[in-house]
Amino acid sequence: MNLDKLKTLLEGVQHGDIDIDAAIQSLRYLPFEDIQFSKVDHHRQLRNGFPEVIFCEGKTVNHVKEISRRILAAGNLLFATRATQEIYEAVLTLDASAHFNELGRTISVGQPSGELHDGILVVSAGTSDIPVAEEAVETAQILGNRVERLYDVGVAGLHRLLGNHETLVKARVIIVVAGMEGALPSVVGGLVDKPVIAVPTSVGYGASFGGMAALLGMLNTCAAGVTVVNIDNGFGAGYSAALINQSHGDFKT
Amino acid sequence: MNLDKLKTLLEGVQHGDIDIDAAIQSLRYLPFEDIQFSKVDHHRQLRNGFPEVIFCEGKTVNHVKEISRRILAAGNLLFATRATQEIYEAVLTLDASAHFNELGRTISVGQPSGELHDGILVVSAGTSDIPVAEEAVETAQILGNRVERLYDVGVAGLHRLLGNHETLVKARVIIVVAGMEGALPSVVGGLVDKPVIAVPTSVGYGASFGGMAALLGMLNTCAAGVTVVNIDNGFGAGYSAALINQSHGDFKT
Amino acid sequence: MNLDKLKTLLEGVQHGDIDIDAAIQSLRYLPFEDIQFSKVDHHRQLRNGFPEVIFCEGKTVNHVKEISRRILAAGNLLFATRATQEIYEAVLTLDASAHFNELGRTISVGQPSGELHDGILVVSAGTSDIPVAEEAVETAQILGNRVERLYDVGVAGLHRLLGNHETLVKARVIIVVAGMEGALPSVVGGLVDKPVIAVPTSVGYGASFGGMAALLGMLNTCAAGVTVVNIDNGFGAGYSAALINQSHGDFKT
Amino acid sequence: MNLDKLKTLLEGVQHGDIDIDAAIQSLRYLPFEDIQFSKVDHHRQLRNGFPEVIFCEGKTVNHVKEISRRILAAGNLLFATRATQEIYEAVLTLDASAHFNELGRTISVGQPSGELHDGILVVSAGTSDIPVAEEAVETAQILGNRVERLYDVGVAGLHRLLGNHETLVKARVIIVVAGMEGALPSVVGGLVDKPVIAVPTSVGYGASFGGMAALLGMLNTCAAGVTVVNIDNGFGAGYSAALINQSHGDFKT
Amino acid sequence: MNLDKLKTLLEGVQHGDIDIDAAIQSLRYLPFEDIQFSKVDHHRQLRNGFPEVIFCEGKTVNHVKEISRRILAAGNLLFATRATQEIYEAVLTLDASAHFNELGRTISVGQPSGELHDGILVVSAGTSDIPVAEEAVETAQILGNRVERLYDVGVAGLHRLLGNHETLVKARVIIVVAGMEGALPSVVGGLVDKPVIAVPTSVGYGASFGGMAALLGMLNTCAAGVTVVNIDNGFGAGYSAALINQSHGDFKT
Amino acid sequence: MNLDKLKTLLEGVQHGDIDIDAAIQSLRYLPFEDIQFSKVDHHRQLRNGFPEVIFCEGKTVNHVKEISRRILAAGNLLFATRATQEIYEAVLTLDASAHFNELGRTISVGQPSGELHDGILVVSAGTSDIPVAEEAVETAQILGNRVERLYDVGVAGLHRLLGNHETLVKARVIIVVAGMEGALPSVVGGLVDKPVIAVPTSVGYGASFGGMAALLGMLNTCAAGVTVVNIDNGFGAGYSAALINQSHGDFKT
Amino acid sequence: MNLDKLKTLLEGVQHGDIDIDAAIQSLRYLPFEDIQFSKVDHHRQLRNGFPEVIFCEGKTVNHVKEISRRILAAGNLLFATRATQEIYEAVLTLDASAHFNELGRTISVGQPSGELHDGILVVSAGTSDIPVAEEAVETAQILGNRVERLYDVGVAGLHRLLGNHETLVKARVIIVVAGMEGALPSVVGGLVDKPVIAVPTSVGYGASFGGMAALLGMLNTCAAGVTVVNIDNGFGAGYSAALINQSHGDFKT
Amino acid sequence: MNLDKLKTLLEGVQHGDIDIDAAIQSLRYLPFEDIQFSKVDHHRQLRNGFPEVIFCEGKTVNHVKEISRRILAAGNLLFATRATQEIYEAVLTLDASAHFNELGRTISVGQPSGELHDGILVVSAGTSDIPVAEEAVETAQILGNRVERLYDVGVAGLHRLLGNHETLVKARVIIVVAGMEGALPSVVGGLVDKPVIAVPTSVGYGASFGGMAALLGMLNTCAAGVTVVNIDNGFGAGYSAALINQSHGDFKT
Repeated sequence: MNLDKLKTLLEGVQHGDIDIDAAIQSLRYLPFEDIQFSKVDHHRQLRNGFPEVIFCEGKTVNHVKEISRRILAAGNLLFATRATQEIYEAVLTLDASAHFNELGRTISVGQPSGELHDGILVVSAGTSDIPVAEEAVETAQILGNRVERLYDVGVAGLHRLLGNHETLVKARVIIVVAGMEGALPSVVGGLVDKPVIAVPTSVGYGASFGGMAALLGMLNTCAAGVTVVNIDNGFGAGYSAALINQSHGDFKT
Repeated sequence: MNLDKLKTLLEGVQHGDIDIDAAIQSLRYLPFEDIQFSKVDHHRQLRNGFPEVIFCEGKTVNHVKEISRRILAAGNLLFATRATQEIYEAVLTLDASAHFNELGRTISVGQPSGELHDGILVVSAGTSDIPVAEEAVETAQILGNRVERLYDVGVAGLHRLLGNHETLVKARVIIVVAGMEGALPSVVGGLVDKPVIAVPTSVGYGASFGGMAALLGMLNTCAAGVTVVNIDNGFGAGYSAALINQSHGDFKT
Repeated sequence: MNLDKLKTLLEGVQHGDIDIDAAIQSLRYLPFEDIQFSKVDHHRQLRNGFPEVIFCEGKTVNHVKEISRRILAAGNLLFATRATQEIYEAVLTLDASAHFNELGRTISVGQPSGELHDGILVVSAGTSDIPVAEEAVETAQILGNRVERLYDVGVAGLHRLLGNHETLVKARVIIVVAGMEGALPSVVGGLVDKPVIAVPTSVGYGASFGGMAALLGMLNTCAAGVTVVNIDNGFGAGYSAALINQSHGDFKT
Repeated sequence: MNLDKLKTLLEGVQHGDIDIDAAIQSLRYLPFEDIQFSKVDHHRQLRNGFPEVIFCEGKTVNHVKEISRRILAAGNLLFATRATQEIYEAVLTLDASAHFNELGRTISVGQPSGELHDGILVVSAGTSDIPVAEEAVETAQILGNRVERLYDVGVAGLHRLLGNHETLVKARVIIVVAGMEGALPSVVGGLVDKPVIAVPTSVGYGASFGGMAALLGMLNTCAAGVTVVNIDNGFGAGYSAALINQSHGDFKT
Repeated sequence: MNLDKLKTLLEGVQHGDIDIDAAIQSLRYLPFEDIQFSKVDHHRQLRNGFPEVIFCEGKTVNHVKEISRRILAAGNLLFATRATQEIYEAVLTLDASAHFNELGRTISVGQPSGELHDGILVVSAGTSDIPVAEEAVETAQILGNRVERLYDVGVAGLHRLLGNHETLVKARVIIVVAGMEGALPSVVGGLVDKPVIAVPTSVGYGASFGGMAALLGMLNTCAAGVTVVNIDNGFGAGYSAALINQSHGDFKT
Repeated sequence: MNLDKLKTLLEGVQHGDIDIDAAIQSLRYLPFEDIQFSKVDHHRQLRNGFPEVIFCEGKTVNHVKEISRRILAAGNLLFATRATQEIYEAVLTLDASAHFNELGRTISVGQPSGELHDGILVVSAGTSDIPVAEEAVETAQILGNRVERLYDVGVAGLHRLLGNHETLVKARVIIVVAGMEGALPSVVGGLVDKPVIAVPTSVGYGASFGGMAALLGMLNTCAAGVTVVNIDNGFGAGYSAALINQSHGDFKT
Repeated sequence: MNLDKLKTLLEGVQHGDIDIDAAIQSLRYLPFEDIQFSKVDHHRQLRNGFPEVIFCEGKTVNHVKEISRRILAAGNLLFATRATQEIYEAVLTLDASAHFNELGRTISVGQPSGELHDGILVVSAGTSDIPVAEEAVETAQILGNRVERLYDVGVAGLHRLLGNHETLVKARVIIVVAGMEGALPSVVGGLVDKPVIAVPTSVGYGASFGGMAALLGMLNTCAAGVTVVNIDNGFGAGYSAALINQSHGDFKT
Repeated sequence: MNLDKLKTLLEGVQHGDIDIDAAIQSLRYLPFEDIQFSKVDHHRQLRNGFPEVIFCEGKTVNHVKEISRRILAAGNLLFATRATQEIYEAVLTLDASAHFNELGRTISVGQPSGELHDGILVVSAGTSDIPVAEEAVETAQILGNRVERLYDVGVAGLHRLLGNHETLVKARVIIVVAGMEGALPSVVGGLVDKPVIAVPTSVGYGASFGGMAALLGMLNTCAAGVTVVNIDNGFGAGYSAALINQSHGDFKT
């Protein structure tokens, strides 16, 4: 349609129906989204075959169901984060193959097309950090990656981490999820020379301030090569890891 | 040397000079650094041919000069951050080819070996953010990358950013440096599907709290694919960008 | 009444019934509200025909109902913020024409008299910011303005905003409502040369601190012409926008 | 130049030298600034006849002098904030008519063209708040307004404020500058029905936290019609006040 | 008893049964509470005829009831703060004359003996501050004072306060209760030359941080003669006001 | 003068020169300070014979000297806080009897008239708290009190405090100055039944946050009867203590 | 098993089946936990006969029950913190001798073997601090100590503490639990020359910030010999006290 | 002297010169310090032969010199922290044997008497943490301990720590000094079963907030057995470590 409008305008110029000054005037207010940016947007929405990640927190079950229905009707992959059992059941009525990761609180329908990419490792410090770690895992998977897990290897029992040294060095990008003092990314970052994405979790007590202590610890890491996302933001870490892991031209719309 | 010690031990076992229980006992306290981890460490130190980045802040001129002398004597690349004119002059007495990036406050001696890697773009919001941006540029360069700059494209004048859309989409990893409200990474992250590393700067006034406002803005970004480093940490961003940009096996010691 | 008292006093002086020293003594403790300030107050209360905005949060249903009854009995416009369904039903028993904006949580009875004023635009970043945006809309409307909405145009998808550039430049005052990193007012402020009122919302996760990240972002905006109200304070923004929009003598009591 | 490029393109289409698909492709990446946004930008930069406000903090004297030279060479008004005596002397060498407001730390060269707009009142709580108040005054003046001052009318001596009630009610927009507990905007906001822009200052001791106490006080004001700018941001307040005061079509580029 | 023990010791010395070195040894570890400090303590507990104020928050109904039973059994006045309806009903079963201030959430049984002291005025800014104000009122009353109230005189409607100027100047000590920006104590402190005790309340929205904004405002007051208690601490303000009001020797154990 | 103006007005009414409507109009905008509030103000300024306390911080030496000259010329007492040696020397040139309390950084000229009031005790925890304590002492003295000192009795060596129990119980109002953890007011408040004014000082290291730790400690005191002023605000404490100590009608202008 | 693997490797070397270079290669990645660190780990887990402390917060009843079953099946001591009545009942079905400390919210099954160690004293400021104190007591007891309690001796009634001076001086390590201003550890630390472990509790109101005020107070203590654990962390204090109390070689695995 | 006074009193009782009631009265206000607490105090002051640690920060050189003179005149050990070169030179004029630890900024004169105690290990993360570590070392030494150092073993290069495992396990109490993210105490605490005292340092950049990030990290440690002192408080850590290390009766006055 909009390309049509532009085409029509240019044909008008070509045929002498529209003079150049009028055309310039029109082009100055050219609705950007219709040409350049909506393309970026379609690019983003359709990337890996699904149009939109549904962040369920703060949405009603019906709201999520309705969005899901439209996404599935369009033949897209579905991916929802911060989902509940109730939302899962609603999605199940739309598609019986819906998969619910209870710990990670994600719902997915469909599989990414093409070959999966190896190289992402998700490490967690304690068992309480696993929900956030699983959100990262599911996010990276739906974006086309095969993800390895290494859980419960916190710094108070270093041997658990050190005993898995080979797993660490094999990865191309490592997501490290930790609460409390948030020290694990520093230790992992010191053992490997790969990009590390640190995810602070709100796990903690007393003066942990809902993950602020872990966040500050990660930002102040003494190890180079560590970047940080927001507290409990497993989705953001999985998304960035996928961008990094697929950054050789093979991450296509 | 240490490999020698281990070899000697094993030869003792081989020749029957050391019995197995004694060997087990020795190996239980085997100094790790001498075998496994010091290798990691040498790996890290020697990566790209330079043993150690010198963080000058809090070090005396003589201290930096002495460290530099030893690094140069070993035939390594030299790279120092948060350097002053006075430190630069001291390093010049050691090597007349020393390069000083006054804005970025970095000193480097030597060039990374091998072909440079394209793909890193450093974007800054305002002119006051340039010192931090330059630190990132220099860090990524010494690690073997050719870095492109896009400066002074803050969100209060969007056209400057949008007019460089092609530069943005060509990059493989983008560092975005911004102070004040720290909004630029969100806007950039919305325009590209490449990993974005956000660097908050301490540029700001009033309730910016030395970069805290920008840091919080970046952590709370509504764009996916953005990770964050500490305030003013251009080095950390450049280092992570290099790890990401060279993550296809070609980032070798 | 009070003017009467003052008149009586002055007549006493005029007629010689009250001597001047006694009059001075009385006037030193003259209850201010009865003359000067209560006028200001009536001015404020009666402005646009309604005496008082009811802030429902922390008030019981009965309390709100009772206040509403008195306001309606006096023939005034009624406007209540932070209202619930239950409160709405209570008000409905008083006046069947009561209007409930569920999203904005406002109740209104009656219409502002006189011609409505064009010129206020309310922009929101995400769908979660809409309740606060609607509170601003309703507030400005009951104060006599016709308000335009532009919702869901957050900075991570700039084309949505840019595609509505003409809407932005037509407005005389723009309210921008945003949570998370709060970047939208900076972008809008850079596109127009009209006063922008920024409203941070408590929408966000992790280190958003109940809207503090957005608030700091807005206070540290790099765009000139932006002022800020408290977190989630849609009412305050709507009120200020009305004052600005009607500041040419046509904002009369 | 850029309009020329667009014209050339369209002429190519008109003359059949460029086919329509190629033209569409070019237009999709049309550098926006050259047409639409640079106009916005020129609009902003040239508004009231001066291209750019120079924020001197963090700039060297030479840097400011160089920017000033170019601005003056272009025949524009010059306005600089956070200026020092040394900067003023440098500017004096460029233009002997340069005016330095020592308290407000602003430098201006030239006068706004056209008739000045009445209606802006700047109120300050204490004598220590005057520098910030003066920055607001100078900003609003250079933007084409005649500004009235009402200083040292803090809430601990209410009579000073109340005795100037007429001055308050005559204003169309009021800037209130206060440090310490920041209570003055609430009191002023309760006395008038005009937009009030509150500026917290970093004046205070002990637990004032560099103006944070005043900022929080102003954001939590119990008076409607008050918006807030960043700590010590007299420029921002003056700029917003000018936008408000001139919002009836008479604020032209 | 303990005085008895001391007496016995001294009699032993007097009669030569205990030698001086042994007595010195005993006296070095003399349990202080039995002589000096328990007296202070009884002094405190029995002051004004009631042994202990019961802070109900965090205590079970049974716990409060049991403490109350013992206090009443001892013939003392009973005073409890932060009480609930359920606790009140429990106390009613112990003493049918129990008085419950629902707003202030206090329970009292009995009256202070002796003549009541005039001079304490409790001022509140808004209706939401009244519960804290009532806690202050009840505390000062049970300690033997006759308390005057002046409610809903916040700074956004100054005439309400100014119209009660005479009430203010008559008081000997004024408690000022306010939430939001906490500006009222500054205004009151500027109108009188009596000690003002400021009580911040947790009333507020957005960036009020549970009363922190009001607390900071009060600590940074520009008026001399204002001291501050903790957020919502009506009891503390009432207690201090009583100490001040009765500080002429007539506040006896 | 102003009373004269009012008198003239009333005489005009009395003589029929001014009609009643015109008089009402005049009285509605009667400059309050000229009658009621300026009297309060004069009352405040002239209380105890000095018009104004000079807070020197942030004022130039010349500024302070000029204010001092006018105060002394009017025959008033002079009192300045946060003074420097340089300021003292400037004041000395005005009046050779000027007294400088170096520790407390106060300057005073003249003595309060009338008999001094006993009853104020200033207690300090450590030697570093003495400057703030001395500011409180000097403030209370110039306001007409004889002040007793009890210094260096911090809670880590309780015997120093307990050994001065009699001094504590004799006082009518006690100022307690403490930094670090700010525990001393709680201990003092538990030993006496007199009003205690707590002054946190910025003395401390590490996580004391410029006195914030002490301030929070004092606000959260478990002792009743303690109120708090801002960090390092010895003047405020001394002023409030004077108001309390003289609250029996004998505190006259 | 793992020692077996190492033994097999060394025997291969001894017998010439494995050459030395291959052995070196194997040993470089020797899983550390199998030899050195898992021993540390077993050491830690099995210390005092129980393998793991169960932190119940955030775990389901079934989860805790299942862990408990395995611990008990292995014949170990069981210790759980932050337990509920419901969890207790679940554990009771596994072992009827399970002991529930309701206040301290701990469950224990079994007794530490060997003689108990005297020397730990747990002091609490108020009755609300007792739950945290009891957690410390139970922790130290299960680790093999006999613990003395001294409760409700807060600083507002010093005689209670001073009257127990002998109890204080007898202890070898003292845990001091306090909320509100957290002053008790300073006072205790000033009375004894033994290590004091301070535990801030989240008990408090207003500006106590969930124990932050107490935590800051304790960190800023003016008494030497005081160290601090996290807010409400009775377990951590009890554990550290046990380490200190048993630090003479008798604290064995 | 004071014991003499008590003796005199008791002799008066013995001889019948003082009756028992009068004696009781005297004893009720017996200055505590003269008997019980001053003994505690002398105990504290004279412990290990030195009366008082001089905290130099905030003291003049002359002040420190004067205190030192009196301490040395009394034949005591001298120990000063936060000392400067200038202070050292002043002390040298008093005693030529004065020892200055430049890094740790401590001055000491004399040696602790008796045999030194082994068992304290001071670990530091980076070279910038060494000044605080040295303060801890010197403090523990002057209190009679022989201290071992293990520096520059931060978590980003774990092998350095692990290679010194034997040093760690030999210690009886370990002080761990770290800035930035403060992760080292967690790692050390996981490797040993000895009490660990964590000292956060103000070393760090960006969002380290003067050591707050490290402090929070340490308080939220996932390792048991770790307690924390204030930021940069090497003295406090050394003092507590000495108390712990000497807690078997051999730490005598």
